[in-house]
Amino acid sequence: MVKSTSSFDLAIVIGAGAFGTSIASVLATNFKHVLLIVRSPDVYQGLKKGENQIYLPGLKLPENIDVCLDWKEFEEFTKNRKIELVVCGLPTSGIRAFFDLHSARFSEFFKRGIPFVSLSKGIDPETLELPDDLLLDYFYEYRDLITFFSGPSFAKEIVEKQITLGSLAGRSKKVLMSIAQMMETPYFKVFPSYDVKGVLLGGALKNILAIAGGIVEGLGYNHNTRAAMITRGITEMLRFGVVFNARPETFYGLSGMGDLILTTTGDLSRNKLFGMELAKGRRAQEIITSQRSVVEGYKTAKAAKLLSEKYEVRARIFDAIYSVLYEDKAPKDVIEDLMSTPVRFEIT
Amino acid sequence: MVKSTSSFDLAIVIGAGAFGTSIASVLATNFKHVLLIVRSPDVYQGLKKGENQIYLPGLKLPENIDVCLDWKEFEEFTKNRKIELVVCGLPTSGIRAFFDLHSARFSEFFKRGIPFVSLSKGIDPETLELPDDLLLDYFYEYRDLITFFSGPSFAKEIVEKQITLGSLAGRSKKVLMSIAQMMETPYFKVFPSYDVKGVLLGGALKNILAIAGGIVEGLGYNHNTRAAMITRGITEMLRFGVVFNARPETFYGLSGMGDLILTTTGDLSRNKLFGMELAKGRRAQEIITSQRSVVEGYKTAKAAKLLSEKYEVRARIFDAIYSVLYEDKAPKDVIEDLMSTPVRFEIT
Repeated sequence: MVKSTSSFDLAIVIGAGAFGTSIASVLATNFKHVLLIVRSPDVYQGLKKGENQIYLPGLKLPENIDVCLDWKEFEEFTKNRKIELVVCGLPTSGIRAFFDLHSARFSEFFKRGIPFVSLSKGIDPETLELPDDLLLDYFYEYRDLITFFSGPSFAKEIVEKQITLGSLAGRSKKVLMSIAQMMETPYFKVFPSYDVKGVLLGGALKNILAIAGGIVEGLGYNHNTRAAMITRGITEMLRFGVVFNARPETFYGLSGMGDLILTTTGDLSRNKLFGMELAKGRRAQEIITSQRSVVEGYKTAKAAKLLSEKYEVRARIFDAIYSVLYEDKAPKDVIEDLMSTPVRFEIT
Repeated sequence: MVKSTSSFDLAIVIGAGAFGTSIASVLATNFKHVLLIVRSPDVYQGLKKGENQIYLPGLKLPENIDVCLDWKEFEEFTKNRKIELVVCGLPTSGIRAFFDLHSARFSEFFKRGIPFVSLSKGIDPETLELPDDLLLDYFYEYRDLITFFSGPSFAKEIVEKQITLGSLAGRSKKVLMSIAQMMETPYFKVFPSYDVKGVLLGGALKNILAIAGGIVEGLGYNHNTRAAMITRGITEMLRFGVVFNARPETFYGLSGMGDLILTTTGDLSRNKLFGMELAKGRRAQEIITSQRSVVEGYKTAKAAKLLSEKYEVRARIFDAIYSVLYEDKAPKDVIEDLMSTPVRFEIT
């Protein structure tokens, strides 16, 4: 049902994965229309019926979410409507492929002053860059309009209207506050931040610790051990932050600690479930090839390993997870690693 | 069974609550004998049979834990043995009452150079002081020997030998490293820190947020909301830290974030269970009077409220919990508070 109180006209969301779809459902509150740009025909067919049957099965989406599969359909839908926000829900690994083809179109949106929110989390395994650099390669000219959302937010719970808070990082206070207003609903809220690198790095690295959390739980360890692993892990995260000149406080905010708590203690994280499968003795490559959803932490673990080598980051837990994923180290060795460090001061 | 490999002779533990008992079980690895000083005859009777039937029912304790109910029994047990560590597991509210009577005896131990570990978490509601000041009032002369343990550690899981890490704060590196060695087992480990105030404050305040976590869960909110509440709560914790000159990093360590994650996401926390009962509509006073175990967060919430007023600490979540506990505010209002703040930058 289109609400007469909607303040904004049209929001575009690129990518109809679970997260992109959930943000579309948030935007459906304040926007008259939300248009999802979909790449897969099967996702498209489901969404036409008001449900993302592939990524969020069983959840009814707001009726003012529309969908398009190509630019012809896009043009038709948008021609008499005012685009006021563009959201990009592509996986990190899909950013280049998409904008290599379509950057001209998005430059047009930027020229009109339309703000942009990226939802991508991850580190590019080749360049070791975060999503901001991947996007700014195409759109540096429009940097003030580009923002990055990250926070503790299972897509399913967002669609269910569970109360959800996140960080929105960018350069321009005006743009951040304006997007915050567009996204705010009684159950969803973003907190602006200028620390783009910190927000993105927390969102990327936490997936690796979620795998560690899954391993800990899968091996039968309980709350004390899980809390210890998370806490020691975030200490290592901060050391990566130094390399990107991120602020420590950001890692302790919604996009860092908040998201880490969510993914390691909640039961909906693909990364955590992946870790639990590893604990059963399955090999990483086998699990990855058997499922459709992207396990961001798997790829990010490789990037983190390259980063820790390149910049000499002391990251015992991250390195151990890498070895489990790519060198067939036994998951239980990760736990032993945690305990076998010599006694040292906690703050070092 | 007394292990022939034990490196130390005798450790004393004052107070046989759940936590004191669990630390006694850890010390039983490296000490030939551990003597628990018990105050209640019923706890004493259970421990005589190798189990703390009141606080840790069903868990078999190591055989080299002994127990005494009075100083006569204490003298008998200790006379030909070498006390090498004293651990104090009294609740914060019991520290003054105990040492008003027995400080001379403990001064004797200090004179012999025996190190001391306090397990107390909380804030004195009258003086608004942390356990260190309460103890140092009696033993300031021996301050280098006094340390404070805090960390994510459910007593039950410690006795079950789940891997557990914690912080041990004190002034003397030598004493800290020496106690760390006495306490280290293949499943238990402490990380030294010089930030006594930070370690103690995290351990105290986290109980209030655990109540908040219980309310969130009890009201039917899910992972996103819980992670948001914890993360925004720790931001407020840091503001209290400024008053005590604690280090921000400490709040993100084992005694702060680690313990907070444990108590809000685990299912064994009395504080969290208390919050869940509140969410059902029961009144705080009624729950408190119906149970034997101390809910530290209930008392600490009052102390935190006095602190936030006295020092003008911006602590919206802590204040809201206080109102639920002492002013019969509805638990659901706490959630509404979380969402009704105006949009502001995350790091402020």
